[in-house]
Amino acid sequence: MRAEILSCGTELLLGQITDTNATYLAQSLAALGIDLYYVSQVGDNQGRIVETLRRAWGRSDLVIMTGGLGPTEDDLTRESISELLGETMAVDPELVVTLRARFAHSVMPERNLKQASLIPSARSLANPVGTAPGWWVEKDDRIIVAMPGVPGEMYKMWEEQVLPRLGALTGGVIFTRILRVSGIGESTVEEKLGDLIHNTNPTLATYAKSDAVDVRITAKAASSREAESTVVSMEQQVRQIFGHYIFGIDKETLAGRVGALLLERGQTLGVMESLTGGLVANAITDVAGSSQYFVGGFVTYTSELKARMGVPAETLERYGAVSEETARAMAHAVRERLGTDFGIGVTGVAGPDKLEEKPVGTVYIAIEGPQGVVVGMGPGWRGSRSDNKRYAVLYTLNLLRRYLDGSISPAK
Amino acid sequence: MRAEILSCGTELLLGQITDTNATYLAQSLAALGIDLYYVSQVGDNQGRIVETLRRAWGRSDLVIMTGGLGPTEDDLTRESISELLGETMAVDPELVVTLRARFAHSVMPERNLKQASLIPSARSLANPVGTAPGWWVEKDDRIIVAMPGVPGEMYKMWEEQVLPRLGALTGGVIFTRILRVSGIGESTVEEKLGDLIHNTNPTLATYAKSDAVDVRITAKAASSREAESTVVSMEQQVRQIFGHYIFGIDKETLAGRVGALLLERGQTLGVMESLTGGLVANAITDVAGSSQYFVGGFVTYTSELKARMGVPAETLERYGAVSEETARAMAHAVRERLGTDFGIGVTGVAGPDKLEEKPVGTVYIAIEGPQGVVVGMGPGWRGSRSDNKRYAVLYTLNLLRRYLDGSISPAK
Repeated sequence: MRAEILSCGTELLLGQITDTNATYLAQSLAALGIDLYYVSQVGDNQGRIVETLRRAWGRSDLVIMTGGLGPTEDDLTRESISELLGETMAVDPELVVTLRARFAHSVMPERNLKQASLIPSARSLANPVGTAPGWWVEKDDRIIVAMPGVPGEMYKMWEEQVLPRLGALTGGVIFTRILRVSGIGESTVEEKLGDLIHNTNPTLATYAKSDAVDVRITAKAASSREAESTVVSMEQQVRQIFGHYIFGIDKETLAGRVGALLLERGQTLGVMESLTGGLVANAITDVAGSSQYFVGGFVTYTSELKARMGVPAETLERYGAVSEETARAMAHAVRERLGTDFGIGVTGVAGPDKLEEKPVGTVYIAIEGPQGVVVGMGPGWRGSRSDNKRYAVLYTLNLLRRYLDGSISPAK
Repeated sequence: MRAEILSCGTELLLGQITDTNATYLAQSLAALGIDLYYVSQVGDNQGRIVETLRRAWGRSDLVIMTGGLGPTEDDLTRESISELLGETMAVDPELVVTLRARFAHSVMPERNLKQASLIPSARSLANPVGTAPGWWVEKDDRIIVAMPGVPGEMYKMWEEQVLPRLGALTGGVIFTRILRVSGIGESTVEEKLGDLIHNTNPTLATYAKSDAVDVRITAKAASSREAESTVVSMEQQVRQIFGHYIFGIDKETLAGRVGALLLERGQTLGVMESLTGGLVANAITDVAGSSQYFVGGFVTYTSELKARMGVPAETLERYGAVSEETARAMAHAVRERLGTDFGIGVTGVAGPDKLEEKPVGTVYIAIEGPQGVVVGMGPGWRGSRSDNKRYAVLYTLNLLRRYLDGSISPAK
């Protein structure tokens, strides 16, 4: 089945609201295994709505409309469907009763009567939340679903009335798993996937997210068991390719994974950071329950404060504040001072100016733990100041994750 | 001029992302007085992109495309425009130089080369933030603008390169000023603006941004001087309404304003924070040059660490870690310990569970400075954990800004 979404409302074209209804419906269609090829937004103009609707009717089996079911002259969805199908709207006596009941404590404006109208091909979809019932239209092996634009009303109508009808029509089940990759960029991920990216069932797709690259595996089958086993066998192939770069699945975050590993081991963590300015500590404390393993952090933005927090003055003088030696000393100092199992030290140059003759984007990371020290060095990113900070945080979290899951060996 | 937006990306049709780019562009077009009649989302499929693009080309003077400019096989915007216009893409040597410079510290995958391609009708739009330059295509009295889908890259390209070109075409000159408001929400801002929001020249519009509410004033006139003076006279009216809630204009950020005020006064700052977990320090250090006034911060995630950093054990015991008294003691302790002019203390409950019987969203903020102490208390926000952290940071920065600009009086 091929679906298309058509959202009506001049507010959308003025940028006063964002079409989050389309996102919600798109997700729901993907989960149902219904292909969605087109989404359009049109203003409250009958000519343009009918034009767009006619094209959708010509190329899609299922047209999902939102918006334009209100009582005003600007609400033209019913009129447009009627024009498309050449049918005449008539007030339905039963719907009038339901509608009048919603105005029990006030007088119903006469213009609301059109909300109780139907055409011969349409059945009404009840709206328990608002005054606008939806339409379920079936004609010539095609379906049009028209729902209100108010998200709360739409969600309820979709889930309680439209989804069951669609499920009965399609058969087939979808299963999806996301593998989360850290340490390499999206284009490298895609390159490594090679021809797998062209596979048809299951399908693979990559998405760059703020804390990782996602590889999404989606399978469609007659039963959920069959769909899942198709995904799992592809997952094994993908894991073969990426090994330790995969840190989690579905909604797991890098900081969440680090937290889970620390909890599992009953270990604690402290941070001393300069270029990241508190962002490492922030990422760690974004995880609910992080107070069980995160003791605290020092944002040592000056060399003087680094020294006061336990970095030997000699190290700072000899190697500079931006050096592997200083990162190591920071990790050691915070671990000792806070009595934690792990200590992280991060220093570098966020930009826009270079520091100690080291270029913008230089980052030194050290993590000291019970098994010794691991170090990492940023590749000299060339992003904005806040990009450089963010990359350094991801690099740090991934290094700690690898220390914790044993995919990297610390030097004693 | 009649415009149309075409957003490309299968993620949109799978509901993995929402097309907020269309909203942003729609707002901008409305402010320019350019009519927008159609918005469409299409997946990464050249046939469907060209089909939709051809229709747009037939009915609109300006087609604005976002997405599909990346280096992968799924990125088909350049190919689709070339097919529509029957022109052949060729690698542009100058663009290659710029592109390779972005890979100074790593090897550029060969597939990235297509990002340096043009067709005869296209000129390149520089992308200072990412690897994908945009295209400005002019042919047969029509224009196609193609920009990256990553919002940050798109906004910058639109504002710095596309808007001036469009202004030159539509005749008339556009002048825009943004007044940045902190301390009240968007609906209150709109309510206070009253009928001004319906004004036609200049137009006013409000936008909720991550660190403030923006009131955007846009005027169109024959000369830039005339447009500016129209904006300035409206600005005076708006300032009358909002007074000290306005902290800056245009691209000024709250943290940037705080930094400018500290630099002006030659004063320094230290932070001790718990619920915000490093995010206050991070916001302050997002400003380039912040090392001139920001000495450092302590993320004291346990009571024990608060005590070790100078908060009297008695205060913690008597009032609890989440209390105004503890916030005051934190501000005092960090100011004393770091020898800074200002010390900030922030404590509270980020969630999801309550703490010391205080509800999620409780926040206590204290700022100690040369003139005394100001305190603020969060209203018990009911957002997610990271929302609560973010709100607390904004509240803190705004309190410090008001201390520094004299719009709030500290108690001795």
